[in-house]
Amino acid sequence: MTGEIEGGARVVITNVRPRLECGRYRVKAIEGDLLDVTADIVRDGPDLLQASLRYGSPSGEWADAPMSHLGNDGWMGRFRPETPGIWHYTVQAWTDHFATWRRDLGKRVDAGQTVDLELQEGALLLEKRLVLVPKEERRVIQAAIEVLRAPGKSDGWDAPRVTAAVDESVAAIMAGHPDRTEAATFEPVLGLNVERVRARFGAWYEFFPRSTGTSTEHGTFATAAEHLTAIAGMGFDVVYLPPIHPIGRTHRKGKNNALEAGPDDVGSPWAIGSEEGGHTDVDPKLGTIEDFDLFVERAGQEGLEVALDFAIQCSPDHPWATEHPEWFHHRPDGTIKYAENTPKKYQDIYPINFSTEDADGLWNELKRVLEFWISHGVEIFRVDNPHTKSFAFWEWVIDEIRAEHPNVIFLAEAFTRPKVMGMLAKLGFSQSYTYFTWRNTKYELVEYLNELVHTDMALYFRPNFFTNTQDILHEYLQHGGAPAFKIRLVLAALLSPSYGIYSGFELFERVPLHEGSEEYLHSEKYELRPRDLGGPDTLIPYIKLVNEVRRQLAAAARLTNLRWHDVDNEAVVAWSKTAPEEQSLLVVLNLNPFGREEATLHLDLDALGADVEQPFEVYDVVKDTTYTWSGHSQYVALDSPDEPAHIFLVKV
Amino acid sequence: MTGEIEGGARVVITNVRPRLECGRYRVKAIEGDLLDVTADIVRDGPDLLQASLRYGSPSGEWADAPMSHLGNDGWMGRFRPETPGIWHYTVQAWTDHFATWRRDLGKRVDAGQTVDLELQEGALLLEKRLVLVPKEERRVIQAAIEVLRAPGKSDGWDAPRVTAAVDESVAAIMAGHPDRTEAATFEPVLGLNVERVRARFGAWYEFFPRSTGTSTEHGTFATAAEHLTAIAGMGFDVVYLPPIHPIGRTHRKGKNNALEAGPDDVGSPWAIGSEEGGHTDVDPKLGTIEDFDLFVERAGQEGLEVALDFAIQCSPDHPWATEHPEWFHHRPDGTIKYAENTPKKYQDIYPINFSTEDADGLWNELKRVLEFWISHGVEIFRVDNPHTKSFAFWEWVIDEIRAEHPNVIFLAEAFTRPKVMGMLAKLGFSQSYTYFTWRNTKYELVEYLNELVHTDMALYFRPNFFTNTQDILHEYLQHGGAPAFKIRLVLAALLSPSYGIYSGFELFERVPLHEGSEEYLHSEKYELRPRDLGGPDTLIPYIKLVNEVRRQLAAAARLTNLRWHDVDNEAVVAWSKTAPEEQSLLVVLNLNPFGREEATLHLDLDALGADVEQPFEVYDVVKDTTYTWSGHSQYVALDSPDEPAHIFLVKV
Repeated sequence: MTGEIEGGARVVITNVRPRLECGRYRVKAIEGDLLDVTADIVRDGPDLLQASLRYGSPSGEWADAPMSHLGNDGWMGRFRPETPGIWHYTVQAWTDHFATWRRDLGKRVDAGQTVDLELQEGALLLEKRLVLVPKEERRVIQAAIEVLRAPGKSDGWDAPRVTAAVDESVAAIMAGHPDRTEAATFEPVLGLNVERVRARFGAWYEFFPRSTGTSTEHGTFATAAEHLTAIAGMGFDVVYLPPIHPIGRTHRKGKNNALEAGPDDVGSPWAIGSEEGGHTDVDPKLGTIEDFDLFVERAGQEGLEVALDFAIQCSPDHPWATEHPEWFHHRPDGTIKYAENTPKKYQDIYPINFSTEDADGLWNELKRVLEFWISHGVEIFRVDNPHTKSFAFWEWVIDEIRAEHPNVIFLAEAFTRPKVMGMLAKLGFSQSYTYFTWRNTKYELVEYLNELVHTDMALYFRPNFFTNTQDILHEYLQHGGAPAFKIRLVLAALLSPSYGIYSGFELFERVPLHEGSEEYLHSEKYELRPRDLGGPDTLIPYIKLVNEVRRQLAAAARLTNLRWHDVDNEAVVAWSKTAPEEQSLLVVLNLNPFGREEATLHLDLDALGADVEQPFEVYDVVKDTTYTWSGHSQYVALDSPDEPAHIFLVKV
Repeated sequence: MTGEIEGGARVVITNVRPRLECGRYRVKAIEGDLLDVTADIVRDGPDLLQASLRYGSPSGEWADAPMSHLGNDGWMGRFRPETPGIWHYTVQAWTDHFATWRRDLGKRVDAGQTVDLELQEGALLLEKRLVLVPKEERRVIQAAIEVLRAPGKSDGWDAPRVTAAVDESVAAIMAGHPDRTEAATFEPVLGLNVERVRARFGAWYEFFPRSTGTSTEHGTFATAAEHLTAIAGMGFDVVYLPPIHPIGRTHRKGKNNALEAGPDDVGSPWAIGSEEGGHTDVDPKLGTIEDFDLFVERAGQEGLEVALDFAIQCSPDHPWATEHPEWFHHRPDGTIKYAENTPKKYQDIYPINFSTEDADGLWNELKRVLEFWISHGVEIFRVDNPHTKSFAFWEWVIDEIRAEHPNVIFLAEAFTRPKVMGMLAKLGFSQSYTYFTWRNTKYELVEYLNELVHTDMALYFRPNFFTNTQDILHEYLQHGGAPAFKIRLVLAALLSPSYGIYSGFELFERVPLHEGSEEYLHSEKYELRPRDLGGPDTLIPYIKLVNEVRRQLAAAARLTNLRWHDVDNEAVVAWSKTAPEEQSLLVVLNLNPFGREEATLHLDLDALGADVEQPFEVYDVVKDTTYTWSGHSQYVALDSPDEPAHIFLVKV
């Protein structure tokens, strides 16, 4: 800490925000968004400062944005990262000798002092700066120097020498061409992961391609492609496919997770690898890689992106088990260790040993897997259980991939402790599964969303709220009937910019393996589950409506604009989201799926931009009805079996 | 950020606290205090961790303290820095393979599995660690290995092989001799400025030695020494002397800051330097350096430390002005620039140019000045206006001095913007003047103290509450009469561990230069102000009482133990301070100096360690009266002209 004697640097920059773990990890942003950067900047003594936000694009070009003083030694500047990739930023500040001199000169003139020597000092300051001033402006400065040095009256605002000294055009040129030789620069330079909009905003639909045949006939990429129109018609943006690779035979699980599979059992797609190939192969039952390419193409035509599962684990039949036994854990008898969640054993799965001596070979092979699928048009990966793989690997591979392919998005499927989930997000995952499924009461929802939205988590952790997954059928859905499905859909889709459903949700599928279980009976993980989306009694029109609202309102695409509104009933929750120059979204939702709830809503009119004196219209997109409201308090009544939600567009 | 592929490190340590500006500045501590260090530690996967707090003494010896898991991936450890100086600390964590194996073995045995292979694995783990185990314990491990490898039953808790595997003494040896080869260590290593107790706790008394003569006869170190017994008798710990150096003649200020001094005017001690010498000389009117040494010795005999003023500025007559003109600012006409607070001019003062080309010469000379006074027994410096000198200089000189003289204390006299005052504290000042003088209402006091006590400021900013200074006579004192002096004394002395008064306070001196001014009439800065401390109507007995309470209670020596108690009257404030195993301090204070206030006090009984069901005694040291209280609510009435404060010792 004891440094060199230099005497120069007098300016200290601290508390640069946003910043994550002292700059060890990068903050996240979305292309095109303005990033506000603040800092505390102090200097000893009374001299004035100038400060600049310096930012560098992924290609390494640096630019400056001026910072302004907010008061109390806080400064702010902003820039707009226009392209995905790794950006950088820092803050630079320096003593503004000319502005200081100009300020003090004014005080002296006000006090009636003669300022001859001060004018000489000013001329010196201007002269010293000349070299930094472009030719076309230099003439202005040179003229000022001459006047400052001319003999004559040197007190009072009417003295031409004083007038020249405080000339605005001179001040502007000096401010525009500062001398930064003594500038302080904040260290470390901070990184910013800029991603495309889909990293924050998207509606996901998960389905198993193999279930698009019949209960006995295995679906294919071709039959799956036939579902894409219906999925797109519901308003989804992303279709997420569980692993599409060859499935192992050894210790294959049967229906309902039976230890022994029957000869026709299809096995879990997460038991990856067989003699037919591994992570860069497709299950022949689904088709060929060319069929997959066609599927991706067809999805693109429907406006859908394909997200693949990236599950780093192998069935005992995976080619790696014989080609690279060193990538696995071994037991004292020389056998490869299967997966366990002690004392549970998963003999159909070999976990990977990230601490292998051949980390170099392993890590690069995994990177090659991602590159393979990227070359087949996949730019979104849903990563299975990333928290059981090496943190260092994720930081490395995500950076490596995004350096070449900045549009690639990684979703972390980690249901584990909060700080572990946070760490994965800090390491680079674009978005994350959450505890949303287990947050059902108003208290739970408000507390959890406030953590996601109004703490530093908003800098790095982007939620993706799934209503259900192939592993999670919450008892709220099991018992709440169709209204529960509506409620959870409205919550997921209108609280979080990214959300998803797992197929069957739209058909109200809700039979658990057994009472108290969150697993589905006849789980699609172990058998084919063909579905008819064309029936009469589905959630499809409602899903379509909600997704239309999401696409219509820029406010729905953002997280940190969430504001709660008071409701005097614990079963009713209300929130709004706003964006500049458009109608606000206001949702009032009955969380009780079984009946009617009445409540008085106490609106935060400021959050809505409404005036307490001025009536305003709210249009309920569900009921297609417009109400005129005025003031803070509104009576609401929602009967869930009829309709649990008001989804209002607020016109102010 | 994209690193090497190593595959090893799986553990990530973040959020190590306490920490200041990411470790750029050192946190402060007092010798002998326990320092609690917390961190978030995560690892991918389910393996168990072990963590250690590593700490290094000023002499560079490192030691370990175990950390324990607090839950939610938070860990805590503590160490006690026993000596002043720069300490360091960091956190280390690693995967505890043996504990993980032992935990999983237990689960398997519980599940009724045979664990033969697991026992083999355990034997391997023990064997690998043998080299780290000291000889005397190695036998225990070797015996365990033999049993683990012996043939025989390998399921059930009754199997001898299982019993040996989970043996507590084996577990303890393994935990005590961990394998840290794959340990993660938090970076950067954090610094800790450990200081002696006086850096936090002390009662200061400021006086001008030259005023200890008569109104015409200049006081000396000898006459000043005669006051030390009285000062010590009031219970003070530190006597702070304004500059004692030769005073300049050029542009000397007269009485009441008159621009022209008369021939007998003594001048401001802050106009340092004359033909009689500079910063390492004493004003001959005060005596010789030997007289000063005697004064310091005499103070020590009275239990008082001497604090000197360190004011880096010169009168035009200072030897440096001729010997080192390059250390000053120059005007275009070649003259040295005098001090200004534009448009005010201070022609009797030359400020130093810290950006001089000869920074090396200047900085080392200033360091030599400090070393000179240290060699004359001074270990406390009250630094005048440090915010107008270079930040980099302070960081350098404080570190340089404290490296050799870890007992030296620096008090920053900076009354400026909050972040500038904070920066000086971060740079190394042991303690700081504050806004206390201008915080007089309950709202102001509570808000300000909460900032000092309950924010990160407590990590680096130690307040020294002065009731008044030679520059600051607040209107509260000017108008509030004797009760105002009592009130401000109680606030300063019992809110802040360090506090001070400037002489005259004990005599209720309160005549301002003019109405609306905070300057004293006949300011001692410009003339002799002899005082008679022996009169009847003084605050001396009250000061003595308050200082006795401070010395009696360890709680008064700490800042962060401050707790407010609710009072239903804005004119009455109540707070407590507690320390382990002693009576608590509870103060109830009427802030209205003019009359009687009644209020109901709502005690925070938990803060006092009292039981709502149990009566407890409070002894008022002012009234020498004991009351028995029970419950939260107490009626209090305080008539300031009689006595504004209850100062209670609480026996629970």
